[in-house]
Amino acid sequence: MADKIGFIGLGRMGKSMAANLIKKGFVLKVHDLNQTAVDDLAAMGAEPAPVANIARNCSIVVTMLPSSVEVEQLALAADGIFANARPGTILMDMSTIDPLATDKLARLAAAKGLSVVDAPVGRLAEHADRGESLFMVGASDTDFARVKPLLDAMGTTTHHCGPVGTGGRTKLVNNYVAVSLTQVNAEALALSQRFGLDITKTLQVLLGTSATNGQLRMNFANKVLVGDTTPGFTIDLAHKDMSLVVNAAHAAKVPMPVAAAVHESYSLARASQHGSIDFSGMADVVCELAKIDKPRVPKGWTPV
Amino acid sequence: MADKIGFIGLGRMGKSMAANLIKKGFVLKVHDLNQTAVDDLAAMGAEPAPVANIARNCSIVVTMLPSSVEVEQLALAADGIFANARPGTILMDMSTIDPLATDKLARLAAAKGLSVVDAPVGRLAEHADRGESLFMVGASDTDFARVKPLLDAMGTTTHHCGPVGTGGRTKLVNNYVAVSLTQVNAEALALSQRFGLDITKTLQVLLGTSATNGQLRMNFANKVLVGDTTPGFTIDLAHKDMSLVVNAAHAAKVPMPVAAAVHESYSLARASQHGSIDFSGMADVVCELAKIDKPRVPKGWTPV
Amino acid sequence: MADKIGFIGLGRMGKSMAANLIKKGFVLKVHDLNQTAVDDLAAMGAEPAPVANIARNCSIVVTMLPSSVEVEQLALAADGIFANARPGTILMDMSTIDPLATDKLARLAAAKGLSVVDAPVGRLAEHADRGESLFMVGASDTDFARVKPLLDAMGTTTHHCGPVGTGGRTKLVNNYVAVSLTQVNAEALALSQRFGLDITKTLQVLLGTSATNGQLRMNFANKVLVGDTTPGFTIDLAHKDMSLVVNAAHAAKVPMPVAAAVHESYSLARASQHGSIDFSGMADVVCELAKIDKPRVPKGWTPV
Amino acid sequence: MADKIGFIGLGRMGKSMAANLIKKGFVLKVHDLNQTAVDDLAAMGAEPAPVANIARNCSIVVTMLPSSVEVEQLALAADGIFANARPGTILMDMSTIDPLATDKLARLAAAKGLSVVDAPVGRLAEHADRGESLFMVGASDTDFARVKPLLDAMGTTTHHCGPVGTGGRTKLVNNYVAVSLTQVNAEALALSQRFGLDITKTLQVLLGTSATNGQLRMNFANKVLVGDTTPGFTIDLAHKDMSLVVNAAHAAKVPMPVAAAVHESYSLARASQHGSIDFSGMADVVCELAKIDKPRVPKGWTPV
Repeated sequence: MADKIGFIGLGRMGKSMAANLIKKGFVLKVHDLNQTAVDDLAAMGAEPAPVANIARNCSIVVTMLPSSVEVEQLALAADGIFANARPGTILMDMSTIDPLATDKLARLAAAKGLSVVDAPVGRLAEHADRGESLFMVGASDTDFARVKPLLDAMGTTTHHCGPVGTGGRTKLVNNYVAVSLTQVNAEALALSQRFGLDITKTLQVLLGTSATNGQLRMNFANKVLVGDTTPGFTIDLAHKDMSLVVNAAHAAKVPMPVAAAVHESYSLARASQHGSIDFSGMADVVCELAKIDKPRVPKGWTPV
Repeated sequence: MADKIGFIGLGRMGKSMAANLIKKGFVLKVHDLNQTAVDDLAAMGAEPAPVANIARNCSIVVTMLPSSVEVEQLALAADGIFANARPGTILMDMSTIDPLATDKLARLAAAKGLSVVDAPVGRLAEHADRGESLFMVGASDTDFARVKPLLDAMGTTTHHCGPVGTGGRTKLVNNYVAVSLTQVNAEALALSQRFGLDITKTLQVLLGTSATNGQLRMNFANKVLVGDTTPGFTIDLAHKDMSLVVNAAHAAKVPMPVAAAVHESYSLARASQHGSIDFSGMADVVCELAKIDKPRVPKGWTPV
Repeated sequence: MADKIGFIGLGRMGKSMAANLIKKGFVLKVHDLNQTAVDDLAAMGAEPAPVANIARNCSIVVTMLPSSVEVEQLALAADGIFANARPGTILMDMSTIDPLATDKLARLAAAKGLSVVDAPVGRLAEHADRGESLFMVGASDTDFARVKPLLDAMGTTTHHCGPVGTGGRTKLVNNYVAVSLTQVNAEALALSQRFGLDITKTLQVLLGTSATNGQLRMNFANKVLVGDTTPGFTIDLAHKDMSLVVNAAHAAKVPMPVAAAVHESYSLARASQHGSIDFSGMADVVCELAKIDKPRVPKGWTPV
Repeated sequence: MADKIGFIGLGRMGKSMAANLIKKGFVLKVHDLNQTAVDDLAAMGAEPAPVANIARNCSIVVTMLPSSVEVEQLALAADGIFANARPGTILMDMSTIDPLATDKLARLAAAKGLSVVDAPVGRLAEHADRGESLFMVGASDTDFARVKPLLDAMGTTTHHCGPVGTGGRTKLVNNYVAVSLTQVNAEALALSQRFGLDITKTLQVLLGTSATNGQLRMNFANKVLVGDTTPGFTIDLAHKDMSLVVNAAHAAKVPMPVAAAVHESYSLARASQHGSIDFSGMADVVCELAKIDKPRVPKGWTPV
């Protein structure tokens, strides 16, 4: 018998992900505080339902929420998921949250015969729109097999990282590197600009040595360097991920001085009111605060 | 008439570079404080000579020295290059030094009808051995045309970055990024290890997203992750380059908080007596200080 | 009618504080998970009671707990304080917790006709033993008047900082400075030691200029500099306070790069297994990691 | 026979120091590139003279110059001090320079039968005006006895720290702490302001615990907190001292992550064009960049 799917959290990404599930033929019950989002999904064929109803009737409940506070509330409230779900139900949390919160939910779930899968989402909102997301999944092999069809419907790349808890942890490691690359590149380009170097020469060198990196080649080349800082992923969201990284590192006793310095650079960017631009825009923020000309490539330039 | 070439500084890399020039047919006068190195080059056909003699007889003098102190001494002493060279002579300094020292030498050279080219060397000592170095060159177009044949004999990639001073500055920007990537990767792998993640899963994810970077794919995969920390480029040398970066940034009024944090991490690695290992070994240093198991991939693993 | 006092949380400091209340004539109901601590207080005249009973019968309930998790649990559980207290009851939380948690409790309390006072404790455990603590209090003027007699019984200095929430926030600002001074001093002494300076000369200079500070004059002089790192206040606790500071700063959009660097230094000290010594011992940790002789003054030295 | 005194370097502080020597009866030969300063001293009774003349005729030559470049030039040039001084002459360098430069000069001096004393100046320019400076002196006991009368004429506090080189090193340790306190205080006050705390309450608490420090009590209370950021000691000069500290620490293998973070904060302050205000003004800079109200005490407030 096919799993019945509940989907809770129809925000910028969650809505697209739920829509892709419907398009691929899954039958969904959905819930969100935002009635417009619920109506939109209902128009596509989903059935709106309260959380308790979803918990009672669905064998896989997907959550895509802002933070661990909302996930715990939904999971643990009297009218929430754990109190109402049947044994064998999987809570697949796709939010990016504190991994210790995931661990706690997994323990509480196991005590009730339920299980938790953590499957946070990589790549940008546009990828979610097109069903091209990347997932880092923590799940038992059995649970992974059950959620795999859903992931295939929402994305193109799925990494099964290990048991529950490893998906969110892998995302933190990955996002630490990606977000830090952005700041490293930003400082490098500020230095290049102040030195008066030709930015295309600098980029040509960087992209051709072991200094090359995905943020520079992909994100910078398409966004800030051509003067586009409309957000794919905002400085505010990058800051939020770095907060999760730093907190998790301190909880786990891992000294990460560069992570902390990156975190503070994003904090300054937010405090100086640049939080809503794309995170490649850190290059502009560093330059603006230090009175340096922003780095821009000539029209038609492409990374080689 | 072909340029006569002087080569001063026959250390780990300089010796290989001079040897490659000889192999490609250049006639060299050479100088070094280390007589063994001089003898080895003489055996290949180079003519040992004092600095003043080299300055008087060569139209291009190459220097490959530890720091700006030695370069300035050689250039400015009474029996040095500037006091003895004929007008039109090029000093091509291939050392990695403070760019303000290069600027000063270029000014003093111009006043005497001489010129300076800065052409620091990228990649590792093994590349220099095989004539596969990368060069970042600051030179007038005329000077660049004259030194280009020498660079072609010593390496495979040459970037003409702009006028004199831009070669060294580009190298600082590039090495800042490469050396910082190493520390970012080191902290990420320490976090992954403490989280108990499968290192090959973590690497698979990192190498497949915008977190991917040249240090991880090339240097880490071939060195520290397979347990090899014999030096291609030591932590001590990476620290030296970061000192040049931080000093140049402060002189130029470019705030670089992540550069400073990286610099201190390397300083701690040196002070805790790990300075002589390969700089990818920062992953081991971070883990050792924090009592975390070192990150190692299974035999036969390769990055995909 | 005199306030009846409940005291929940009889740990290292709470037990001494409760004992001082009893000695000064207050009638206490007490609660703790540790039965020995409860028995000790009972032997002094306190009445052991469950939390709900305390809430129903006491007009001031003091909590002294490890973190906001425990405080929220006690306040908000069905058998907790808010569900059982009579209108007009004051919850005086003396724990050091996230100020946003205090704000939340204050809002929930107000909705039930209760009020919250935050009154975290300054100085060391020994001071608490002797009734010589310092308190930073956030309270309405009316509530402050009611709790003042208790504070006078437990300490010698009370600062009424403003309305509820300001006590904890003031403590975070204060502890940020005190904990950071320790690291600043530690780095300074490591530099002095490596320079080969006479430590007593260095201290004489520092204590006589604007570099002088309470940590150096009081804590360092009495502890680490005479070779005593038995804990008055551990590195682990200092780290915990810095975690609260950094989290609160990020929540409030205050960039604090030095706070972050201090936080990481304490994180390294914990990860390298020095978390249980006195926080002045950061001087020893910095020196040990960098292979520098620890700073010690000769017998009989006193700061002038 | 009394020592004849040469004084080279009549800048903001040097001029006042030389004037105080004349007022106390010393006979001076003076030199500076700024003719007005020389004329002013001549009007007080000093004899203008070229450096070589000073070197030949004075048994103590005082230098007070911007950096090691100028000191080395004056000491080592053909028409400089070492080439022209008689055996037994003392070069007392009162500049704040790289201690390795002092060591080098001391070695070269000894080889010629000369000696070097390093005696950098503490406190502010106003103190120098009034003959109330503080000196940290590195000198042999014999040399110290000879220079002591001069120091007594220019200041009120003299610390004999040890042999030559220890004066400058002690100053670096001291100024590291003083300059870092400023940034620690600045971040603390920014946090207090954003928290909406009453600044006078926060100060009262800080000044009454182990968080108290000389910068807060003296410099902040008299300058930035009353809205006065006219420079006693500029952010630019504090940054210069931190550059010396960071370079010396790296040369000596002392990891100082907080020093590096402080250094970058001053770098940002300079780059954002606040370098010329008093260094207590870092509190304003932190607040301005983060859009926080500047910390100001009410008229008439004094620290207690």
